[in-house]
Amino acid sequence: MNTEPSIITTSTIILTPLGQEGALERVLLEQPVEVALNERVIGSAMVLAENLEEFGAGFLFGQGYVSSPEEIVEVVLCDQGRVTVYARVDDKTEPETIVTSGCGGTGRISRRMLEEDFPEASGNCINFVQIGDLIRGTLNNSTLSQDTHCVHACGYWADGRYLGCFEDVGRHNAVDKVIGAILLGRFPTGGAIYTTGRLTSDMVLKCARIGIPIVLSRSSPSSLGLEIAKRAGLTLAGYARPNRLNVFHAPWRITNNGTGE
Amino acid sequence: MNTEPSIITTSTIILTPLGQEGALERVLLEQPVEVALNERVIGSAMVLAENLEEFGAGFLFGQGYVSSPEEIVEVVLCDQGRVTVYARVDDKTEPETIVTSGCGGTGRISRRMLEEDFPEASGNCINFVQIGDLIRGTLNNSTLSQDTHCVHACGYWADGRYLGCFEDVGRHNAVDKVIGAILLGRFPTGGAIYTTGRLTSDMVLKCARIGIPIVLSRSSPSSLGLEIAKRAGLTLAGYARPNRLNVFHAPWRITNNGTGE
Repeated sequence: MNTEPSIITTSTIILTPLGQEGALERVLLEQPVEVALNERVIGSAMVLAENLEEFGAGFLFGQGYVSSPEEIVEVVLCDQGRVTVYARVDDKTEPETIVTSGCGGTGRISRRMLEEDFPEASGNCINFVQIGDLIRGTLNNSTLSQDTHCVHACGYWADGRYLGCFEDVGRHNAVDKVIGAILLGRFPTGGAIYTTGRLTSDMVLKCARIGIPIVLSRSSPSSLGLEIAKRAGLTLAGYARPNRLNVFHAPWRITNNGTGE
Repeated sequence: MNTEPSIITTSTIILTPLGQEGALERVLLEQPVEVALNERVIGSAMVLAENLEEFGAGFLFGQGYVSSPEEIVEVVLCDQGRVTVYARVDDKTEPETIVTSGCGGTGRISRRMLEEDFPEASGNCINFVQIGDLIRGTLNNSTLSQDTHCVHACGYWADGRYLGCFEDVGRHNAVDKVIGAILLGRFPTGGAIYTTGRLTSDMVLKCARIGIPIVLSRSSPSSLGLEIAKRAGLTLAGYARPNRLNVFHAPWRITNNGTGE
């Protein structure tokens, strides 16, 4: 929850070879936030300052510091731009990380994560009615995107229904917020995400690790995102629209029950 | 220069409620690369493995390890996915960094950089004929984008002409490659970039520090990208098209010489 506005309005000038006119544009507020684990600052990130509790938990999960809802005790936001996650974990040394195409400040994955086995992916399925709910729900609720053209959104569907979406300046942060909602016990695992961002390695990796078996993108996957989806047994689709998916792996989770023939 | 293919081709299934058909998709090759400075590994990043010399130099610049062309001695690529920059610098300890919306592995900026003064920005101007050259040059040469929908491109114009563009899985990496080309003496400073990515804080910050006074984006700026442009005196335009710019700051560098009235 955030009480700060997420947009500033600014005057601009539209210039063309034939003249100019004034305009007003809405610009997304990009802000730094620190993430701490049990009083130790782990890192800072540039984010959209909404749903910071979820972001903090998801950020730490993405970097390997927490791994399950049972570990989380509580999350505290302070006015100075810090989110602190209190968790029952050992404060280990930082794992060796690779900085990824991290649009959102969580663009770091540990080398170990790339090489280890994944938990067995759930056999949960989704049909086209539900895919439509997920995609339309995400896009309709992503008002900041419509206003600023500067955010990515990640929506989540599970337990048979669209559960909500999160926005952020970075696609990874938006996924982190979904994962954080799972870690904080607000969402169940076993569902599907729809992201407006590309499905690059770290995006898919985090879903594989947390137990999200279906990853849909409005855009494309990278080779490594696809490779991780294959290793983890996830269903990955790109260029996703409510009635059309380009499925790169495991199409069997997409069913037709209740739609057309 | 890269002799590896940057694309893999994979079979997919197009699913709709009414049926399915097979398809072939081109997927971008996303790969890890290590960046070292004088034998010390500074970090790793997920990149498009093209123009890695430029990337290595730009990556280190972005994180504050090198700052001018005079410092660079040479850049060496090895087969094991490492790019080593040899530079006449002190191997200092890592500055305190903020992970930014770093689509490209260079999403880290030092807190110090956000707060220090910028070099005085050049008074170089650009007109609409030249803007058209820059934008069309970048988009026409960004073939991987057309094929995979998984890359950002960053083109550079300086000394009165379009000089080239670089592509990468991340918009920050693409800018790093332009900056690296400057550091390696292949491009002059004082020009203009056109990026297909958003102009968030770190994108603009790097341009301010290296001496690129004009930053154009196909997309939008964030609040912090705009704030840095204002502090550094850069010309920033969003939603840029060959004959139309939405200028958020310093429109005086955009001139009309040679086009229309």
